[in-house]
Amino acid sequence: MGHELAGEIVETGSGVKNAKVGDYVSSETHVVCGHCTQCMLNERHVCQNTSILGVDRDGCFAEYVTVPEENLWFNDPRISPAVASVQEPLGNAINTVLSGEVQGKKMAVFGCGPIGLMAVGVAKACGASWVAAVDINDYRLGIAAKMKADMTINSKGQNPVEAIMEYTHGVGVDVVLEMSGAPVVFGQIFKVVRPGGRVSLLGLPAKPIPVDFSNDIVMRGITIHGVTGRRLWEDWVTGRELLASGLLDLAPVITHHLDLADYEKGMDLMTSGDCGKVILYPEGVK
Amino acid sequence: MGHELAGEIVETGSGVKNAKVGDYVSSETHVVCGHCTQCMLNERHVCQNTSILGVDRDGCFAEYVTVPEENLWFNDPRISPAVASVQEPLGNAINTVLSGEVQGKKMAVFGCGPIGLMAVGVAKACGASWVAAVDINDYRLGIAAKMKADMTINSKGQNPVEAIMEYTHGVGVDVVLEMSGAPVVFGQIFKVVRPGGRVSLLGLPAKPIPVDFSNDIVMRGITIHGVTGRRLWEDWVTGRELLASGLLDLAPVITHHLDLADYEKGMDLMTSGDCGKVILYPEGVK
Amino acid sequence: MGHELAGEIVETGSGVKNAKVGDYVSSETHVVCGHCTQCMLNERHVCQNTSILGVDRDGCFAEYVTVPEENLWFNDPRISPAVASVQEPLGNAINTVLSGEVQGKKMAVFGCGPIGLMAVGVAKACGASWVAAVDINDYRLGIAAKMKADMTINSKGQNPVEAIMEYTHGVGVDVVLEMSGAPVVFGQIFKVVRPGGRVSLLGLPAKPIPVDFSNDIVMRGITIHGVTGRRLWEDWVTGRELLASGLLDLAPVITHHLDLADYEKGMDLMTSGDCGKVILYPEGVK
Amino acid sequence: MGHELAGEIVETGSGVKNAKVGDYVSSETHVVCGHCTQCMLNERHVCQNTSILGVDRDGCFAEYVTVPEENLWFNDPRISPAVASVQEPLGNAINTVLSGEVQGKKMAVFGCGPIGLMAVGVAKACGASWVAAVDINDYRLGIAAKMKADMTINSKGQNPVEAIMEYTHGVGVDVVLEMSGAPVVFGQIFKVVRPGGRVSLLGLPAKPIPVDFSNDIVMRGITIHGVTGRRLWEDWVTGRELLASGLLDLAPVITHHLDLADYEKGMDLMTSGDCGKVILYPEGVK
Repeated sequence: MGHELAGEIVETGSGVKNAKVGDYVSSETHVVCGHCTQCMLNERHVCQNTSILGVDRDGCFAEYVTVPEENLWFNDPRISPAVASVQEPLGNAINTVLSGEVQGKKMAVFGCGPIGLMAVGVAKACGASWVAAVDINDYRLGIAAKMKADMTINSKGQNPVEAIMEYTHGVGVDVVLEMSGAPVVFGQIFKVVRPGGRVSLLGLPAKPIPVDFSNDIVMRGITIHGVTGRRLWEDWVTGRELLASGLLDLAPVITHHLDLADYEKGMDLMTSGDCGKVILYPEGVK
Repeated sequence: MGHELAGEIVETGSGVKNAKVGDYVSSETHVVCGHCTQCMLNERHVCQNTSILGVDRDGCFAEYVTVPEENLWFNDPRISPAVASVQEPLGNAINTVLSGEVQGKKMAVFGCGPIGLMAVGVAKACGASWVAAVDINDYRLGIAAKMKADMTINSKGQNPVEAIMEYTHGVGVDVVLEMSGAPVVFGQIFKVVRPGGRVSLLGLPAKPIPVDFSNDIVMRGITIHGVTGRRLWEDWVTGRELLASGLLDLAPVITHHLDLADYEKGMDLMTSGDCGKVILYPEGVK
Repeated sequence: MGHELAGEIVETGSGVKNAKVGDYVSSETHVVCGHCTQCMLNERHVCQNTSILGVDRDGCFAEYVTVPEENLWFNDPRISPAVASVQEPLGNAINTVLSGEVQGKKMAVFGCGPIGLMAVGVAKACGASWVAAVDINDYRLGIAAKMKADMTINSKGQNPVEAIMEYTHGVGVDVVLEMSGAPVVFGQIFKVVRPGGRVSLLGLPAKPIPVDFSNDIVMRGITIHGVTGRRLWEDWVTGRELLASGLLDLAPVITHHLDLADYEKGMDLMTSGDCGKVILYPEGVK
Repeated sequence: MGHELAGEIVETGSGVKNAKVGDYVSSETHVVCGHCTQCMLNERHVCQNTSILGVDRDGCFAEYVTVPEENLWFNDPRISPAVASVQEPLGNAINTVLSGEVQGKKMAVFGCGPIGLMAVGVAKACGASWVAAVDINDYRLGIAAKMKADMTINSKGQNPVEAIMEYTHGVGVDVVLEMSGAPVVFGQIFKVVRPGGRVSLLGLPAKPIPVDFSNDIVMRGITIHGVTGRRLWEDWVTGRELLASGLLDLAPVITHHLDLADYEKGMDLMTSGDCGKVILYPEGVK
């Protein structure tokens, strides 16, 4: 579907045939088979035979990357390369936030890495009435506030369960997003979600975690969504719309713009945690 | 569920027993039976035996009104009487907007009476990426702009079908809300909704209107929702949350504050159309 | 996804690459573009640029038909050619029945042509507690009974509105399916659906029909679905599963098996109405 | 809503005022508050202040039981006392089965106690294309077959993961219902649900169980529903409809009919596992 650009119609989106050298495209990283049960049911993000760029095949640190034409997303030329390059993690955030209802809901986001921060912004843009952001890094919590979190909690100094339950007068929040993968957080999320509420999980804990199914999930009627990838192409379309409308501004999340040659500096920043999304620019792009 | 008020927990919402003289309450106007098919299925807004205040029983122009205790909504004391008094039409707007998805959707709202104007605000608060507001009154279109409509169309001077189809490059919008009841509008709404889209109807046309079901609805896979009343109490809860969070500000819609004694002036304003919601205050309230 | 066949895995479904001469396939008749708004949102059955076999391009009365490989559905060899050839109208029936909930619902199906008859069978297979079938042809109502309709109404001799409202004690049914396209039926369907209920429309009336939106749709909170085509490939998958499980038996609907050379006889049968689905077999297939 | 009984309208369902001595009623066991967040949102089955008969207040082994009038369900007199007495566990089964889609889905039910057995019947009545029932007791698996399970697996002698994955050609089932509470089963359910599938949990394991969130839930896009109680009154209505229509027959599940005086014999039967539902009749009822 097109967008206006000084009177000219610009084709954006997926499925455009005959990509040409010079087209301004982003890429979905899940290369899917198209014929398994999930693909037939439009659940391509959980295709049985997925091959992921950077995991199962060459990713963007390779000198050249090949992707099927059908994986391309044609960008609106007004979108900056920085924003164009983070639409895929934005799609993760959208898939997580919108795996259930958010309008008028109270929410808690555990983990303020780049995708968690985007999730805060998406939730507020889509009508979440109150969003608490939880992390152990004040720099990232500062970005969460810029993404319109209503409360930020540094769980090093404050117990997030107590803070959230106090604010909600003992009820808990309607929705919890787990974006950290930290095992300790799995001991908190089921304490702050209200009975009948939703927990959406994107973070990947490194090992099994004991769960009290009876008391934490079954008796309280909790719904849990495991979230992976992005719904093709609904979540890309939603991202395009939220960005084009100005309802969502990713500027606070994109904290560093480096030349590709400085990739080690970028890695160090990521390790330190004192960053949002770090963009690496190939020569001639920035 | 409570809200904070200077450290004190304030009970807001429905179902509170033992209302006392002096409680700060609003009222749902649909008095429902509780035992028909719809009531058993939590579709109380379409109860088979509904009795409506001001229609089937005394309404607010009566000297005294009796309502069942279970129809009361206990307000947060920080909400102004003006806002407290319009939560019911706000509930209509919310029921209409949220009878389907809105996040990242392009929408058109036909009819900018008070409920249409509230619908514009609710749609933008809940993530609609683009909202066109259509009316024949410039005063009301001015309010629509304050409620964050992205385009306003005076259909006296501009063809709304052409304007919307041009903006959307011939695709149409995802969602149309019909809030006018004007027969001419029913000839427009099915022309601007995209195939697979949604049309939600709140306006009440005075007589039957011919519909080209084959070409306008069936072949294009359109979903139509007739909307009446408010879902109890989901839509009241959503309204409370959108207002309390500041995501929705009804100030632009509430244009006049009159003493009850000046009700004729209020009626004249409504007839002129040069107003949003006109609030009448009983003695001692304003 | 495969099915067991004497220990061998048989690939059925869509998306299989490299179709070979001799493969046992059916075809989806909507050839879609893959890049319009609807296609990006997995609403391919309402693609903006659909080309339909037999309407926009050669259909099955042509000597040869070309279809894109991606439109093929690979059949389980145990399915008879007769059943394999009606999976597409079966998909229409499934799309109509399952455009909302049916489990434990009371339903009315207006119009007992082949798709209406299939809809009766699908509804009962999916848990509809009571299904009334309405038509003007006793032969077809006889088939409806075999498809497990709980009540059959010949509207030539009986008023379907009275019959249905009497059975439901004045409440009406939860769901109405309009499969006839007859204008007179549009005056009945909104009288028999209960407030809050659903009306799904597949029939194509030849001209506009006046609708009392206020009293029939808005005040009663009715949802209307225009239904076209089949959701790709959800509805094909559901059809495969209902057939393979034996929950749905189409035998009563398939009433005549003719050689292709006898097509005029088939046309006469269809005109008479005293038939269900008439299958025409090319030489060497039956 | 009424049902026909020899020409007379019989009121069944909830919300009927002024219950009289001699009325033929069943009772919902969750006594709810009506004003907490969940109650306002029609999620009364997870009311914050639930008081459960037999758990938090006197249950049916007390000489007399008091329940609020609004907890009563007025039965159709044609329903036998045995069936009338098991509508509440039937509601658990319905809530579990219908916490997501079932039409045309392949399912596995782990645990064939009375509620698991009812779930098998509900799933098949609502269009599940294939249901595998898993237990360690052949008597109960025999009942599962009578409830129309397509495959029964005694996990003492057969590995249910292998059996289900073999049947589904390595894909897994769309839906898993956990009705056993056995810790060992929690190691199996995430192995047999396909990516994108649903796991609904009713069983109550006695202690925490380690979960590999990353590999079993997040990366595979699994949805988990904790299920408690019954949705008021949707699940009661669905139960009434499935029973009245004959789509669901609970006769195979109700295996023993004893006088209340023989309650010890009933307890022994339950302990042995060689029973379905054991009905105890007070004097004068059987």
